[in-house]
Amino acid sequence: MTPEQAKDALMKNDGFSRWLDVEIEEVALGYCKLHYTIRPEMLNGFGTVHGGVLFSASDSALAFACNSHGTLSVALEVSISFTRPAFEGQVLTVEAKEVNLGKTTGLYDIKTYNADGKLVCVFKGTVYRTGKDIEA
Amino acid sequence: MTPEQAKDALMKNDGFSRWLDVEIEEVALGYCKLHYTIRPEMLNGFGTVHGGVLFSASDSALAFACNSHGTLSVALEVSISFTRPAFEGQVLTVEAKEVNLGKTTGLYDIKTYNADGKLVCVFKGTVYRTGKDIEA
Amino acid sequence: MTPEQAKDALMKNDGFSRWLDVEIEEVALGYCKLHYTIRPEMLNGFGTVHGGVLFSASDSALAFACNSHGTLSVALEVSISFTRPAFEGQVLTVEAKEVNLGKTTGLYDIKTYNADGKLVCVFKGTVYRTGKDIEA
Amino acid sequence: MTPEQAKDALMKNDGFSRWLDVEIEEVALGYCKLHYTIRPEMLNGFGTVHGGVLFSASDSALAFACNSHGTLSVALEVSISFTRPAFEGQVLTVEAKEVNLGKTTGLYDIKTYNADGKLVCVFKGTVYRTGKDIEA
Repeated sequence: MTPEQAKDALMKNDGFSRWLDVEIEEVALGYCKLHYTIRPEMLNGFGTVHGGVLFSASDSALAFACNSHGTLSVALEVSISFTRPAFEGQVLTVEAKEVNLGKTTGLYDIKTYNADGKLVCVFKGTVYRTGKDIEA
Repeated sequence: MTPEQAKDALMKNDGFSRWLDVEIEEVALGYCKLHYTIRPEMLNGFGTVHGGVLFSASDSALAFACNSHGTLSVALEVSISFTRPAFEGQVLTVEAKEVNLGKTTGLYDIKTYNADGKLVCVFKGTVYRTGKDIEA
Repeated sequence: MTPEQAKDALMKNDGFSRWLDVEIEEVALGYCKLHYTIRPEMLNGFGTVHGGVLFSASDSALAFACNSHGTLSVALEVSISFTRPAFEGQVLTVEAKEVNLGKTTGLYDIKTYNADGKLVCVFKGTVYRTGKDIEA
Repeated sequence: MTPEQAKDALMKNDGFSRWLDVEIEEVALGYCKLHYTIRPEMLNGFGTVHGGVLFSASDSALAFACNSHGTLSVALEVSISFTRPAFEGQVLTVEAKEVNLGKTTGLYDIKTYNADGKLVCVFKGTVYRTGKDIEA
């Protein structure tokens, strides 16, 4: 199974990534790059993008990157740092890179940038590798 | 401003919390309890609730708890641990408790439970207290 | 193997816990309470206890708590929040509690308090349970 | 104050960094590289380096990097992921890089490698910038 096929298998039933309307630019072994646009229903009470949306898009990028090896993997523990607010209409780009790939766990660094290339948040994700194959 | 008024001020414009359709059961100083129901568009590609949804509901509970003092506060850094999957139709309860309240930062523990009282995720959030008052 | 025996097996070769000079007050299944005294060589350049010392004592408490089940377990991912400085001569008490025990991972909450019962740091630790027995 | 002078001011009273016996190779604005050797008293009960030692050396590198701007800064929240054990006699290299520098907070990525260039741990640190100058 290629990283592209693994992504398609995941996306097929991923209602939430569809709601986020993420556009996947690239997937490769241990890697994913995607972008999305901030809509009104993604804002919090302060008029900035809700932290949960930033997390979710990063988490989707993580899922595509860590499942690219064909082994079903799920997030176990995540730490996210918010560095800069983002606003309605902005396009955010998310890039997920593999930092370490062990037998039972993997570690990923996911960064979100705004259109000016400024850092919006940093997401560090540890995944558990179940050992099961992803079903097409 | 009471915790209840601060919550109303936040909720008024919080499109994403409305999308999550969280029902707030209680707010008090440094505290919030809410629940929500998992809908089909909240699932990931594995048929379980997307980690981003679990994060988002926890983050909303954090916002209501940390802003209950009337000082505008925003999440700076969060760590979340996923302990158990949750499925469509389940009702999840989220409880946010204040662990520490400093002058410029605050620390919160937020736990999500399923209807059987089993732990679904643990969220530890550090907030930055801006010093500005929340506007009604 | 009892939690007490597991602790003895770990302590036997734990040079660093001996350097910290932690005094274990209690171990039980998924639980550990210990205390230690801040010495001059534990300070950082600001005259407060080094974050690494606070982390280390918490990490030792985690090790005793998570290995209490007799299954060799190691820290995979930790998040620590520093809430209050501590100074030379102070006695710090560390309490580790099990939040979740899964088949391959476990989650622990470890808090450190000063003699006034004020919170010094909060440590959230995810461990990997190797499945191997601890050797006496 | 140069990054080098800030480092000297911190090191002067840093008993714990001296115990770790870290050798600082380079400091620059938002940057620090150092190395140290694993001694017997740095081991845990499993004969590998204690997580607290890995944390401490990373935390020292963080301190030198984030204080390089001359503004007294302290760690607020750290997340550390352990990817590979390390053993007595090994020389570990720690590199701290600034990911974001805000007015009141900063974010740093610190990685530790063994002599083979393999990743031993990843440390993500958020610091609070007090606004006070470091005293020489």
